[in-house]
Amino acid sequence: MQCFYSPAQDRHAPPTFLLRGAPAPSPERPERAERLADALTELGLRLESPTSIDSPGLRRRLETIHTPRYLHFLETIHARWRAMPGAAELVAPNVHPTGGGHHYPEHPVGQAGWHLHDMACPIGAGSFAGILASAASAEAAADAVLAGERSAYALCRPPGHHAGPERAGGFCFLNNSALAASILREAFARVAIIDVDLHHGNGTQDIFYTRGDVWTGSLHADPSEFYPFFWGGADERGSGDGEGANLNIPLSIGSNGVRFNEALEQLLESMKAFRPEAVVVALGLDAHKDDPLAGLTLETEDFTPIGARLKALDLPTVLVQEGGYPTVSLGKNLAAFMKGFR
Amino acid sequence: MQCFYSPAQDRHAPPTFLLRGAPAPSPERPERAERLADALTELGLRLESPTSIDSPGLRRRLETIHTPRYLHFLETIHARWRAMPGAAELVAPNVHPTGGGHHYPEHPVGQAGWHLHDMACPIGAGSFAGILASAASAEAAADAVLAGERSAYALCRPPGHHAGPERAGGFCFLNNSALAASILREAFARVAIIDVDLHHGNGTQDIFYTRGDVWTGSLHADPSEFYPFFWGGADERGSGDGEGANLNIPLSIGSNGVRFNEALEQLLESMKAFRPEAVVVALGLDAHKDDPLAGLTLETEDFTPIGARLKALDLPTVLVQEGGYPTVSLGKNLAAFMKGFR
Repeated sequence: MQCFYSPAQDRHAPPTFLLRGAPAPSPERPERAERLADALTELGLRLESPTSIDSPGLRRRLETIHTPRYLHFLETIHARWRAMPGAAELVAPNVHPTGGGHHYPEHPVGQAGWHLHDMACPIGAGSFAGILASAASAEAAADAVLAGERSAYALCRPPGHHAGPERAGGFCFLNNSALAASILREAFARVAIIDVDLHHGNGTQDIFYTRGDVWTGSLHADPSEFYPFFWGGADERGSGDGEGANLNIPLSIGSNGVRFNEALEQLLESMKAFRPEAVVVALGLDAHKDDPLAGLTLETEDFTPIGARLKALDLPTVLVQEGGYPTVSLGKNLAAFMKGFR
Repeated sequence: MQCFYSPAQDRHAPPTFLLRGAPAPSPERPERAERLADALTELGLRLESPTSIDSPGLRRRLETIHTPRYLHFLETIHARWRAMPGAAELVAPNVHPTGGGHHYPEHPVGQAGWHLHDMACPIGAGSFAGILASAASAEAAADAVLAGERSAYALCRPPGHHAGPERAGGFCFLNNSALAASILREAFARVAIIDVDLHHGNGTQDIFYTRGDVWTGSLHADPSEFYPFFWGGADERGSGDGEGANLNIPLSIGSNGVRFNEALEQLLESMKAFRPEAVVVALGLDAHKDDPLAGLTLETEDFTPIGARLKALDLPTVLVQEGGYPTVSLGKNLAAFMKGFR
């Protein structure tokens, strides 16, 4: 299996984010990639760099899932932010169009509030390069599958599944899983995204909510008590052309691997009618019991049947890394998944 | 003229808020009330305390402009927030349903994001008592006008005009101006709110946007470049029964008193067709050139014709204090307004 990762991804490395009103060290740091890369190496898998981390082709493909003004914002905001007197080093929103705004503002503070859902997506000087490189890894994995590989893995860090058409959130800026799905659509008529991250993939849902050609399904800790809080309920089923093409299965806080694998079975059963020709797995590993984001209680060995079940779909598959935060278990969880998937 | 203020309002006194990504001392502090109270005393006006700062009647009246779950949130969130491990002393949102959320969450972090637009409305242990007392002052002034006074003034701190049906923002929690208007509606068929604060009164607009019985008009620094950023454009005219009953006049950053008074004339001309029977003035004083929020450039003496023009409407009027931050000019600006109004 081809695996992709660009060292340029590390250029996004904000040291802190705001948690419960106070600054806290960010768990979404380059160490994650090191731990995951080490696990792949131990499995005998070699990480390749994407050929380019900023090609015109990538920019065009990103515009199939994000708005031009959002891409412009991500690229330019840090410099415009820092030009304000008294601005902090990292871009952080302080006012939001909660519930919807009438006008898109010109001011950097207004634009930061428009495009950043939350305090977990700080933007530093190197962030855009790192974010784009992460998307380039997803692109390379999807291109490998388009070129005939049965499956490929992208070590995307920062992750992407909370990023919507024009909003960053939850450590995510560009939606790597959605990008991979959009690229697979260049060759396959129907693509499914299966999100096994601890958190609801609200950005992915938002991008494809009214589309019938990309099915989105997510297993996650119940958002009534857990990030992203406002999306991820079982009643969110898509609309318009996308009616019925979105499935959420919220799990009670603390649910274990048995419950998780049952829910995965239910999700895949529901997906059948869609008859996907290719699959993207939004591969979060933070449902593990030791993950600092502490929502579910999977053991390392619970990731093996998840991998095996997804392998059994017998479809061209792009694995896109989503969450999973630094603990001694992180690399082991990826290895356990790969044990089932390969 | 009867003037109202409760010392209990000072129980809301958050020391800091987040500005451009970094904590900054809050300009919305009890010193504001001292400076305004001193100015009133010099004018020979006596500040009375509202009879009650938490009556069942006030709660009922607040429910005419705010949702029950929002009032419950304001009352209970500080204790629920502090019960979380690692929570900061002040409630501060870190994730928002930007653009609209599907679900109202149970979790304190989710609820904080739902109800608090921005980082300028931190909630401490005494906040709810202070916020309620500020609303009680607005209630007392409106009741004085209902009882036959031609005009009354409420020294509301914290201010209110950014607070919508269920969202706090910009130092505002309960919408004191909207409350006064709602109380005036108990006796008058048509009430107008005239907002001369530096900032767009987005909360007030939101509360009455679809109502035809309360006309709302606001003069303010152009929101494309200024807080609240997402609302306050000239094209926001109300909808449904409220179509045509909302008027925004955004002013270029740095506009002076001549321009401001011209725009006020234009606003009052537009209001005529509505034939209000009573008026609430959302009396911000932060359009002054020395105000730390630095958007417009009025001189102290520019507030006198504003007061005179509003007096000339010759209608029962409740003056509700909105913004205006501590400088040596703050009290003088109120005195200059009163010189024209009385």
